[in-house]
Amino acid sequence: MLVVGAGLVGTSVGLALCARGHAVWLTDSNAAHLHQAQQLGAGARYQGEAVDIAVAAVPPGSVAQVIVDRLRDCDGATVTDTASIKADVLRDVESRFAPALRSSRMSRYVGGHPLAGRERGGPHRARAALFVGCGWVLTPGPDASPKAVADAHWLAAECGATPLVMTPSEHDHSLAITSHLPQMVASALAAELSELPDQQLGVVGQGLRDMTRIAAADPDLWADIAAGNAAELASAMDTLSGSLSTVAAALRTDNDARAAVRRLVETGRIGHGRLPGKHGGSPRSFVIVPVLVPDQPGQFARLFADTAAAGVNVEDVRVEHAPGMPLGLIEVFVGPESAPRLRAALAERGWTLIDEDPVP
Amino acid sequence: MLVVGAGLVGTSVGLALCARGHAVWLTDSNAAHLHQAQQLGAGARYQGEAVDIAVAAVPPGSVAQVIVDRLRDCDGATVTDTASIKADVLRDVESRFAPALRSSRMSRYVGGHPLAGRERGGPHRARAALFVGCGWVLTPGPDASPKAVADAHWLAAECGATPLVMTPSEHDHSLAITSHLPQMVASALAAELSELPDQQLGVVGQGLRDMTRIAAADPDLWADIAAGNAAELASAMDTLSGSLSTVAAALRTDNDARAAVRRLVETGRIGHGRLPGKHGGSPRSFVIVPVLVPDQPGQFARLFADTAAAGVNVEDVRVEHAPGMPLGLIEVFVGPESAPRLRAALAERGWTLIDEDPVP
Repeated sequence: MLVVGAGLVGTSVGLALCARGHAVWLTDSNAAHLHQAQQLGAGARYQGEAVDIAVAAVPPGSVAQVIVDRLRDCDGATVTDTASIKADVLRDVESRFAPALRSSRMSRYVGGHPLAGRERGGPHRARAALFVGCGWVLTPGPDASPKAVADAHWLAAECGATPLVMTPSEHDHSLAITSHLPQMVASALAAELSELPDQQLGVVGQGLRDMTRIAAADPDLWADIAAGNAAELASAMDTLSGSLSTVAAALRTDNDARAAVRRLVETGRIGHGRLPGKHGGSPRSFVIVPVLVPDQPGQFARLFADTAAAGVNVEDVRVEHAPGMPLGLIEVFVGPESAPRLRAALAERGWTLIDEDPVP
Repeated sequence: MLVVGAGLVGTSVGLALCARGHAVWLTDSNAAHLHQAQQLGAGARYQGEAVDIAVAAVPPGSVAQVIVDRLRDCDGATVTDTASIKADVLRDVESRFAPALRSSRMSRYVGGHPLAGRERGGPHRARAALFVGCGWVLTPGPDASPKAVADAHWLAAECGATPLVMTPSEHDHSLAITSHLPQMVASALAAELSELPDQQLGVVGQGLRDMTRIAAADPDLWADIAAGNAAELASAMDTLSGSLSTVAAALRTDNDARAAVRRLVETGRIGHGRLPGKHGGSPRSFVIVPVLVPDQPGQFARLFADTAAAGVNVEDVRVEHAPGMPLGLIEVFVGPESAPRLRAALAERGWTLIDEDPVP
């Protein structure tokens, strides 16, 4: 296996494959990154060895050239990549081969996009488990051979991800709406905070915090991604700003303003209802057991020791944060069958419980 | 104490005050809500008793009338409310008094807005701890007496919240940006999901999930809020859709598109950097200890039992969810001084740890 690019994603691919016992070679134009990835155990320095699969894990702006180089130099190998734009990359790669060579070269390329990543990059943030349980989109072009698709599928699964096959343009359309647009919106929302006086920042709640978390992203990376999916992203941005402008105009002129807002929020509820279950394809009902926790050391550990003693399996946990209070409320998610037992056990141990509904 | 409105907020105020030993009376035009709130122990049915403080915890559309009624009927009492819009309510209340009476009546009114709430309402979701550690904005108007301000301050603190004093228009400007705009944007983003084919919804990641969580909100409530802060909200929406449109136009014409995106993301990073520390006014450094957890029952409880045994104080916890995998990675937040001890203890107990950076 060859991984070109020892950033967060490439190094994580190397770590995942090495952990599964595969031989991995690494290369990167950034010598420091390459050295760091080797130190982390993500693979050995590439010196032209023959490989079965080559992965181009470089920024979107340079990925086409790397794919072309690997298709030319790695004889017989399947070549894939990890860029978060796909149609543009495929077109770019195709255009770099002479027509006579194109179809045979392109038979060995399958676009890929692991749906994992973090707000900040770099090899030191890599982990073998980065892709565990994530989706990994594969976008075979018209010339891709079944063997190449199978290889890319194997790579995704070997890294612990779930392969999802779609066309490059389906990918770009979906990601424009589900990833690229949200990034632009998070950045634009966070940008509006820059003009608020300090004192008024005290009113910021969890809603805005959640909506601007990804605003810490890398401007250069996003310049590449946006430019590489320009038409789809511009159209998604225009749709969104159009629907905001319509409501803003109604508010400004008081022309059926309530109806316009109601319509927007109602349509949003419908879209929100289409999101897959929080835990993936198989939504399951949980019950929240909310526990009020005094602000003293060791409460968290004590709560989970008591939960363990009750023999209850915890499915998820959420800590509600609040200004001036490091720890206030811990919500323990458990299966409906376990909730009464957990409540009884915790009450008996002196915990303050709060009533709660089942959640979807 | 009198609470008018036995919804989520009013019932929670009643529960909080009853828990502190105060006498609370409740009233609501919805008999079922009133009955439920009484059953929950949030107070007794109001029958015209004299009160020191009256709280109007009703939807924004009817709050002005309730405030006026209480100022007229509750002789000498301080009157406050919980509506998430303030300047419009103050104007509306003022306009309902004859000029001769206005200043004396208005001396007993102080606007209030507890910064707590949930995606869904109703008295059955109320809890005494709803406001614990939250901000509670107080917006005294020009006629408000020091006694009325002190009473409102006391009420917020007695419910466990931190009082924040600002003018009604400062409140509305801040909330337009930090709460009302995010709601409109979350709804508009979620609305775009309604046109995506099912299969493509598989690419939805945590970023979009976080950004659309509040899209499950109540359309009628938001119609009231938006209409009650129309000018500020319309202006915030226009600024946001303007900055999105500018970038979209650059992308569409390839006119310095990369620079436009880079500028947007960079400005967003600056705004994001201004957010107060996650745990409120006193940001503290934590270290994340990420633990890879196999998808088997009981792992969560076992992890926290081991953490307790190591004597480490857990500050926060985050579970990373992924499609097809109910539990993959648990990130335990601890103080920098505890991290090495926790890592050693967990490694010794056979847990798979992953390296991580400190987080701000």
